[in-house]
Amino acid sequence: MDVIEFVECSIGRWRSQRSGHSLAMSHFEEVRSTIDIVSLPTNATEVIELCKSNGVDISQAISPFQMSWKGESDWDESETLEGSCILVPIPDKDNLKKGKLLRSQGYAETIPAAGEYYITEDGTFILNTEYDHAAAEERIWFGTPNVRFRASFIKTSDSNGVLTASFSSEIRSLSTEEKSASIINN
Amino acid sequence: MDVIEFVECSIGRWRSQRSGHSLAMSHFEEVRSTIDIVSLPTNATEVIELCKSNGVDISQAISPFQMSWKGESDWDESETLEGSCILVPIPDKDNLKKGKLLRSQGYAETIPAAGEYYITEDGTFILNTEYDHAAAEERIWFGTPNVRFRASFIKTSDSNGVLTASFSSEIRSLSTEEKSASIINN
Repeated sequence: MDVIEFVECSIGRWRSQRSGHSLAMSHFEEVRSTIDIVSLPTNATEVIELCKSNGVDISQAISPFQMSWKGESDWDESETLEGSCILVPIPDKDNLKKGKLLRSQGYAETIPAAGEYYITEDGTFILNTEYDHAAAEERIWFGTPNVRFRASFIKTSDSNGVLTASFSSEIRSLSTEEKSASIINN
Repeated sequence: MDVIEFVECSIGRWRSQRSGHSLAMSHFEEVRSTIDIVSLPTNATEVIELCKSNGVDISQAISPFQMSWKGESDWDESETLEGSCILVPIPDKDNLKKGKLLRSQGYAETIPAAGEYYITEDGTFILNTEYDHAAAEERIWFGTPNVRFRASFIKTSDSNGVLTASFSSEIRSLSTEEKSASIINN
């Protein structure tokens, strides 16, 4: 699996269950959300701007996409978690399995971030992102073509080093008949 | 990382937070537990018996170990989840990164099970187990030497195919001073 195939497999609407683990405090958080992943043309204004602000030539951009989410946490049920970001893979020369991933907004901090990705032999997408005061590792893989998993791990670099991990199970949203057939058979 | 190193890194006491996701029902389960992983000599009676019952020559067994757990679920707080099993890696000839893993008890069904394991280039231990009516995939990797993650995915093969996923964050139990130093610095 290379980054083009990986993005293709991810396009669609996903129903997500996410568990957050605050490791030091042994706390749990539960979030249910809907995630939409849509592909973008490489000449979309946002893609061009993200490449520019990262000093990357637009011709290197492959399979850019937008991810939007809307969810509810059990920590604050009155609050709706909502957002979206643009992601642009910049593969290494002659190797689509490895490169940079530009993002208009990171997970650990709400500023733009560029991470380093690689795709392992078993098709797991691994993304490492260094922030000013934290480092994040995210792993994404498919259980079936319609079930996607994401595990992430964030550690802060200051002396109060907070560790959090989270895990999302994501099921592709299909019509009711398609859903029962495809989840069971794939 | 090969299976000998992987078992060595796993030996110890772990404080675990596990989230279970019932995908069809979109339910969450939270379990806190303590896990002890201890190495066993290859000539331990339980190891010899497990090899025998699987028709495996004891000379092929590498780094056998015992895993015990004691936990509490938010689904039934009065119930204590407790158990233990013996695990015996049987690597392929000349390849410690791939082989069988014999277990005295499986996760999806409480009968003995043998799974197929391999360790990826990034050090993730992936275990696939086929049961009579289900298939399980488990992935284990280290965030730091003292933080271990386990993600598992079970699908049943009957027409009511229930999908469950679970994710555990495990922190090595150390003395208080060791803990603050090692979790932050590793």
